[in-house]
Amino acid sequence: MTQPILHGVPLSPYVRKVRVALAEKGIDYESVPVMPFGPNPEYLAISPLGKIPCYQEGDFTLPDSSCILPYLEKTHPSPALYPSDAKEYARALWYEEYADSKLASICTVPFFQRFVQVKFMGQEADEAAVQKALTEEAPPAFDYLEKELAGREYLAGGQFSVADIATASFFVNMAFGGETVDAGRWPKLADYLERIHGRPSYKAIIEGEKAGLAG
Amino acid sequence: MTQPILHGVPLSPYVRKVRVALAEKGIDYESVPVMPFGPNPEYLAISPLGKIPCYQEGDFTLPDSSCILPYLEKTHPSPALYPSDAKEYARALWYEEYADSKLASICTVPFFQRFVQVKFMGQEADEAAVQKALTEEAPPAFDYLEKELAGREYLAGGQFSVADIATASFFVNMAFGGETVDAGRWPKLADYLERIHGRPSYKAIIEGEKAGLAG
Repeated sequence: MTQPILHGVPLSPYVRKVRVALAEKGIDYESVPVMPFGPNPEYLAISPLGKIPCYQEGDFTLPDSSCILPYLEKTHPSPALYPSDAKEYARALWYEEYADSKLASICTVPFFQRFVQVKFMGQEADEAAVQKALTEEAPPAFDYLEKELAGREYLAGGQFSVADIATASFFVNMAFGGETVDAGRWPKLADYLERIHGRPSYKAIIEGEKAGLAG
Repeated sequence: MTQPILHGVPLSPYVRKVRVALAEKGIDYESVPVMPFGPNPEYLAISPLGKIPCYQEGDFTLPDSSCILPYLEKTHPSPALYPSDAKEYARALWYEEYADSKLASICTVPFFQRFVQVKFMGQEADEAAVQKALTEEAPPAFDYLEKELAGREYLAGGQFSVADIATASFFVNMAFGGETVDAGRWPKLADYLERIHGRPSYKAIIEGEKAGLAG
């Protein structure tokens, strides 16, 4: 098989989803650190929306994390990252959707404002936007996850799945933005994130990203 | 089995995706016409983002079309609405994502401005927004679909799939907004849409919606 290529910078929560899945499944790949801003025409030819990540095997390209993970599951079924039970499988997809849309709009704000805006845009961080995300938007979302985690080690199917990969990914960016989940207010969520981020796959990826940020 | 309930008004392109899948698979269901604006707390309990559709079987709820269709595929595998080949399966998911994000932001504009704004918001249609969608945003997206349809009857796997269900759904709203694809400029896309909208499942649903609009 051609060595797969993963296009996209590691700090993207969507790229990280794919990297964790590739690590869990033990798939080797080449990484091309495409930035999410101002895609060039060459990149648009393989990723029509200009988004990262884009996964490539020769001529075959998949320009969205929510299509790449199901593909990897079909081609490399073990270990399974999707529950086999129909309801739990669908619930896993739902948590992925919730993370990709709702958590994305909350957890990435501190990172975007304090890091991307400052380092790449040459602008000051909009701390009002950060505080709005943390004090107005985060609490109902974190309450929801806290409730969903009641009596559960993983979000769906009693196993590590795409639901956990996606959910935990956005909280990595929140941490890189200098914010963590208040363990007093959301103890199950805080404990869950520590557990997921502590898995060998996640741990190595987070440490690599930290080293990149420090360098 | 409990009779499933589908929450959401038929005119939503996302609700329509599920209705077409249910029709193709011959699944009976009860329809509850929840509107997408101002969800009440009861509805938020089953659909945390307040979005439609939400699919319900007893206590089990799925609040997103992109989770409902995979669930229906697991519980009612025949006829298959996802290709079995891994690459074609992933491509089908990608076209669904492209439709749900890109086509959504283009094809629903005429309908939203000329129908929803006027009928439900008591406001005038913003024709400048309609023209911007049609003349600036639509052409590159329609060019992309025209290219993808070259030599293909269906978007993925040589079969009717979720890719076609999603893509065609947004063009129903475009038609309800008084606009159709220029068959001179995008002949493959226009022909494809006529074919997909002409399937018994799609045809009955579109005619039912038309009757509702006229009523």
